[in-house]
Amino acid sequence: MPLDFIICPRSEKLAAALQTKIDQKTKPLGALGQLEALALQIGACQNSLTPSLNKPCIIIFAGDHGIVESGVSAYPQAVTAQMVANFLAGGAAISVFAKQHKLELLIVDAGVNADLAGLQGLIDAKIGKGTRNFLSQPAMTADDCKKALQASAALVLQQYNNGCNCIGLGEMGIGNTSSAALLIHCLTAIPLAQCVGRGTGLNDDQLQNKLTVLQQALNQHKGITGPLDILATFGGFEMAMMVGAYLKAAELGMLIMVDGFIAGAALLVACKLYPQVLDYCVFSHVSGEQGHQALLNQFNARALLNLDLRLGEGSGIALAYPLLQSAVAFLNEMATFAEAGVDS
Amino acid sequence: MPLDFIICPRSEKLAAALQTKIDQKTKPLGALGQLEALALQIGACQNSLTPSLNKPCIIIFAGDHGIVESGVSAYPQAVTAQMVANFLAGGAAISVFAKQHKLELLIVDAGVNADLAGLQGLIDAKIGKGTRNFLSQPAMTADDCKKALQASAALVLQQYNNGCNCIGLGEMGIGNTSSAALLIHCLTAIPLAQCVGRGTGLNDDQLQNKLTVLQQALNQHKGITGPLDILATFGGFEMAMMVGAYLKAAELGMLIMVDGFIAGAALLVACKLYPQVLDYCVFSHVSGEQGHQALLNQFNARALLNLDLRLGEGSGIALAYPLLQSAVAFLNEMATFAEAGVDS
Repeated sequence: MPLDFIICPRSEKLAAALQTKIDQKTKPLGALGQLEALALQIGACQNSLTPSLNKPCIIIFAGDHGIVESGVSAYPQAVTAQMVANFLAGGAAISVFAKQHKLELLIVDAGVNADLAGLQGLIDAKIGKGTRNFLSQPAMTADDCKKALQASAALVLQQYNNGCNCIGLGEMGIGNTSSAALLIHCLTAIPLAQCVGRGTGLNDDQLQNKLTVLQQALNQHKGITGPLDILATFGGFEMAMMVGAYLKAAELGMLIMVDGFIAGAALLVACKLYPQVLDYCVFSHVSGEQGHQALLNQFNARALLNLDLRLGEGSGIALAYPLLQSAVAFLNEMATFAEAGVDS
Repeated sequence: MPLDFIICPRSEKLAAALQTKIDQKTKPLGALGQLEALALQIGACQNSLTPSLNKPCIIIFAGDHGIVESGVSAYPQAVTAQMVANFLAGGAAISVFAKQHKLELLIVDAGVNADLAGLQGLIDAKIGKGTRNFLSQPAMTADDCKKALQASAALVLQQYNNGCNCIGLGEMGIGNTSSAALLIHCLTAIPLAQCVGRGTGLNDDQLQNKLTVLQQALNQHKGITGPLDILATFGGFEMAMMVGAYLKAAELGMLIMVDGFIAGAALLVACKLYPQVLDYCVFSHVSGEQGHQALLNQFNARALLNLDLRLGEGSGIALAYPLLQSAVAFLNEMATFAEAGVDS
């Protein structure tokens, strides 16, 4: 299943000029720390000395997971659909934070196990009513996986054509920390036990059961290789859509805001296909979910926030977004030593 | 010199009710991490289940330091006055970030070594044209120290009377990491060498000189004790004003946003006088300046951001402020499980 994305590394043409511009601002060299690296990255991604964040948006992909019947989550599967309604009604954390920062919020039914046709504002891209239980068979067919990639790529293109140059991807899917743990384990050298966390709040016994179930699933599918096969075998429809969205956003040179554990697992798949995707990624936070820091290390990434968030939904993205605005603002608006008449 | 502030510990009457309210929101228990503790603190400080941040402001106190003549800073003393003009003109980092988050910004001449009468918008509270060099004599008299405390307390009261319930304190003062290092060393068990950092960017030799100078100053003033005597001996006018402002804000039950290294050293003085001040403090960031993490440990504080900032001006406060807004917003605006019809 070859993919036809064309992703160029980010331009470094302006890197030196951006650094000079940063260094001329009225502050000691490097005194804005990580914000300076962020400003440089955004400028380079946009190939501009005066970058801007236009029509920023977060797309939340929602999907259900067959593995939930094996008791890997503290919440029932019905919560996925209920939370989709909550997103649309404005009652979820991401609804509140997106409104705070004027981030457009798109909610996509990637494969929720419920009939959601009546929900106004929902984008219907349903591939199926949840994935199959990967304890016995691959979560989705290769064909459905490809459909998911294409559907989300089309959505991202639409946002881009509307003037958006800065996109974040969130997710909702009861059970999806299990999928994410398997993707991370299969695509890195990180031992399974280090990839498996408490998700929405498992106790010790439940955590042990989750680990046992996931180990069985691995044994069942021994020998699968290749990021897309691994994605189809253990992933979810919402995660496959995230992969397609990352790839399309990078192809279009958009700035990509990365959320936490699930979002990171999907990004890992995207990076195994096209490593250049990372050039466009800003990592919003270190999640409280076990395994996320190890995953960030795989990306050589330093996240902006570390607040023990473990909610998903793109909530970490929304909370970190004002820091991106600050990076752009200081680059564009601060006075230079010369302009301000300050000795340098 | 007895002080007459009356600072009550923050009310814990509503703590349980606040926690219940947080736990009923549509998210796994604890999934908003540090933001949940922040919401609880803000609610408790305001003794309200529906707290709000009203007319938030940052006051920047500027002052000069006699010790600068001993070569402890990478920048000349003139930069203090030049940066004050830059704050007022809107060209500094804090100007940009305060504008971004609609934070009122007050600039106070606490004791700059220049005639600033012509600067429009500047609040004149000048105690003197910079402190004396504490290598030979105390930086300020006990009387001037008290004047500084009173002047800033009056300013905070004025903001409070204008409807402000959330205040941050910033500073500008070439040489003031030297003062801060001595205050921290004298008021804690932290060795001097661990309190002395590169400030605005000293090289290795300059850092060694700074340490030598500060060790000499300590020898010169052997035996001084008591937070106010230590403040008068090694502090700056801007730092003395910060101490008075912290104390008054806590007395008034305002939420206090704490910046980095200098701000933390001034807070240490305030806490040695009235430990209850800490109840009202939110720590905005871990500074890149050596010694700041050790200082935060003294407060048992966990800061919101860790971005290697080392700029002062209240810049860390402004960058962290949207997280305070997010904490209040989720507490007030998120739906409960019952309201949203989500299984809990």
